[in-house]
Amino acid sequence: MTTTETPSHGLFTRGEPVSAWTVATALPVTYEVRFTPGLLDPANPALAAGGRRLVVVEETVDRLYGGRIRRWFEARGLPYRLCVLPAHEQVKTMDSVYRVVEQMDRFGLARRGEPVLAVGGGVLMDVVGLACSLYRRSTPFVRIPTTLIGLVDAGVGAKTGVNFGDHKNRLGTYHPAVATLLDPAFLATLDRRHLGNGMAEVLKIALVRDRRLFELLDRDGEALVAERFQGPTPGGEVLTRAVHGMLSELQPNLWEHRLERSMDYGHSFSPTVEMRALPELLHGEAVCLDMALTTVIAHRRGLLDTGQRDRIHRLMRRLGLPVWHPLIEPATLGDALTDTVRHRDGRQRFPLPIGIGDCCFVDDVTAAELAAAARETEELSCAAR
Amino acid sequence: MTTTETPSHGLFTRGEPVSAWTVATALPVTYEVRFTPGLLDPANPALAAGGRRLVVVEETVDRLYGGRIRRWFEARGLPYRLCVLPAHEQVKTMDSVYRVVEQMDRFGLARRGEPVLAVGGGVLMDVVGLACSLYRRSTPFVRIPTTLIGLVDAGVGAKTGVNFGDHKNRLGTYHPAVATLLDPAFLATLDRRHLGNGMAEVLKIALVRDRRLFELLDRDGEALVAERFQGPTPGGEVLTRAVHGMLSELQPNLWEHRLERSMDYGHSFSPTVEMRALPELLHGEAVCLDMALTTVIAHRRGLLDTGQRDRIHRLMRRLGLPVWHPLIEPATLGDALTDTVRHRDGRQRFPLPIGIGDCCFVDDVTAAELAAAARETEELSCAAR
Repeated sequence: MTTTETPSHGLFTRGEPVSAWTVATALPVTYEVRFTPGLLDPANPALAAGGRRLVVVEETVDRLYGGRIRRWFEARGLPYRLCVLPAHEQVKTMDSVYRVVEQMDRFGLARRGEPVLAVGGGVLMDVVGLACSLYRRSTPFVRIPTTLIGLVDAGVGAKTGVNFGDHKNRLGTYHPAVATLLDPAFLATLDRRHLGNGMAEVLKIALVRDRRLFELLDRDGEALVAERFQGPTPGGEVLTRAVHGMLSELQPNLWEHRLERSMDYGHSFSPTVEMRALPELLHGEAVCLDMALTTVIAHRRGLLDTGQRDRIHRLMRRLGLPVWHPLIEPATLGDALTDTVRHRDGRQRFPLPIGIGDCCFVDDVTAAELAAAARETEELSCAAR
Repeated sequence: MTTTETPSHGLFTRGEPVSAWTVATALPVTYEVRFTPGLLDPANPALAAGGRRLVVVEETVDRLYGGRIRRWFEARGLPYRLCVLPAHEQVKTMDSVYRVVEQMDRFGLARRGEPVLAVGGGVLMDVVGLACSLYRRSTPFVRIPTTLIGLVDAGVGAKTGVNFGDHKNRLGTYHPAVATLLDPAFLATLDRRHLGNGMAEVLKIALVRDRRLFELLDRDGEALVAERFQGPTPGGEVLTRAVHGMLSELQPNLWEHRLERSMDYGHSFSPTVEMRALPELLHGEAVCLDMALTTVIAHRRGLLDTGQRDRIHRLMRRLGLPVWHPLIEPATLGDALTDTVRHRDGRQRFPLPIGIGDCCFVDDVTAAELAAAARETEELSCAAR
């Protein structure tokens, strides 16, 4: 803290400030992301170090794994309270946050020593994360993602959030879990569509920063989806490269002080498209529509060649992801761009792929360019059918 | 970021984790607190550097100063939208936060370059601060406190918050305003009771860390309240010492990683007492009840002498503050202590004054001690009438 001038009695003199302070400090943040196979095996101590725990479990996950979670705590003799929360895009609201907060109050949670466990997909982790962020201005939590998008995206970053009004994730905080425990065994019960949903975020990382990951997806992606990452096709490198790529981008820019973010690729139009299509599109599907369109924009600008463009679109389709949708049209894209420019503080800062595995940022995307690219994406999509 | 092991294909081997990352970074935070007399004078440029502004003004403040605020923006030719928000303890809720968020959406606020101005008392600043903290996960704001408690307490720290259920400030964040502009001229229209309300927080700082400030309060406090800090009695040193004391405590512990906080003095029982008494007691009044009781506890433990105890109680009364209340009784105090222990992560970490101007922390306050001290405080209060 620096004091500009010594405090004096002459405080009420009009004109220049008489006394001023600058507070300068820094919040250290450390968190761990760790693959932990066999997480629900009572022989594996990773789930809770000891002490009582409040466990928030997504509804479907409770049906599939609630018994094993309860048995884990009982086998290890740890007191716990398990509460079940429905979690999907339409209940990604502050009301769901309140339900978690009420459970925290009822549990009588201590402020620092009893991290809340969040077991579920991206929506559940975002909601529980926001509740923990707000409760007593910051309560620790541990994430246990059970979906592919949770494993590679929502589970590894620092963001929490809920939708507000028509706007996706309009309210939220940066509050990383103290630990994220990744166990791909949960994917065994995930349906094909939700595997594709997660694959869209893996593909994003591949497209903007990891050509090797793209090659792996192109070779093994379909098989991994079909086998739910539990079969003979090796999925480890795909998952670890996706997590590693995500964390490498986040670590130097965790609070988004730099608004040119390659991880925003696929997230320029998709927030508006996803919200307008609710409940039709999953998050990753909306992201894929955005990437398919911007792949065409990049191709029209000469940033990637026709072979690359078509290979990307083909891989999207092979992963069961949509390439075009009726909302990919000028009015929706225009509204989306207006909000995204506000979100990027007055400039487009638009990530576009350069070939496969690299990206750049542009500020000069026009309405005419969007309309033409949307039309071309629709045509490519029709031709491929 | 450190990688514990190189990613490998053997990811699904049960047992030991195969891949783990530790993200380690820090969020730099800088903010300014500045006395700025003549803030609403169009000749003074401090209110807004240029560009458009959303201005959130407390209802009463709008009645008293709204015209001058509008004239300031019009005289300087800056586009603005002024919205009025009722703000008192009973509407210190997420619903008020939503009202601010809706205004931010309607204004089409850019993410970083258009700080929201919050003009009002502590409740208004806490509510607007939380809205800004949540909006797009962090939007800058500037605080212009118009009450004494705002000037010396709510306006200078990092906390935002709203009440939830029966709990005071149960939901909130650490999100300091980029700047706080302090203009004591606003106190000219503050009523006597709200001046006393702010004086309670000044007294807190005096009691735990600034004996000179206590002497100034003892000598000039009554006159400053009577003159609303606008008369011949010099009030500058009282205000600057209060702000300086507060900031000196906050700067090294802005996120409360250390839960032994001298600024928590008067805040062990008061959150519960204040909420149970709603709307009877103002925040500073509840804090004063807590300090009057803990002064007696400190005296009973030999931490201050009878003369000091009585001098403190006498000053409280002279400032128009309550020393005892029917809620200062064993059941309420017990409930308050239970919640405060949770808030301090399982220990009392109870600040107690040592003489005047210093404090210590104890963990061994008992129910019997509380009951006896409550009884004694009531007796002292009756005897003084």
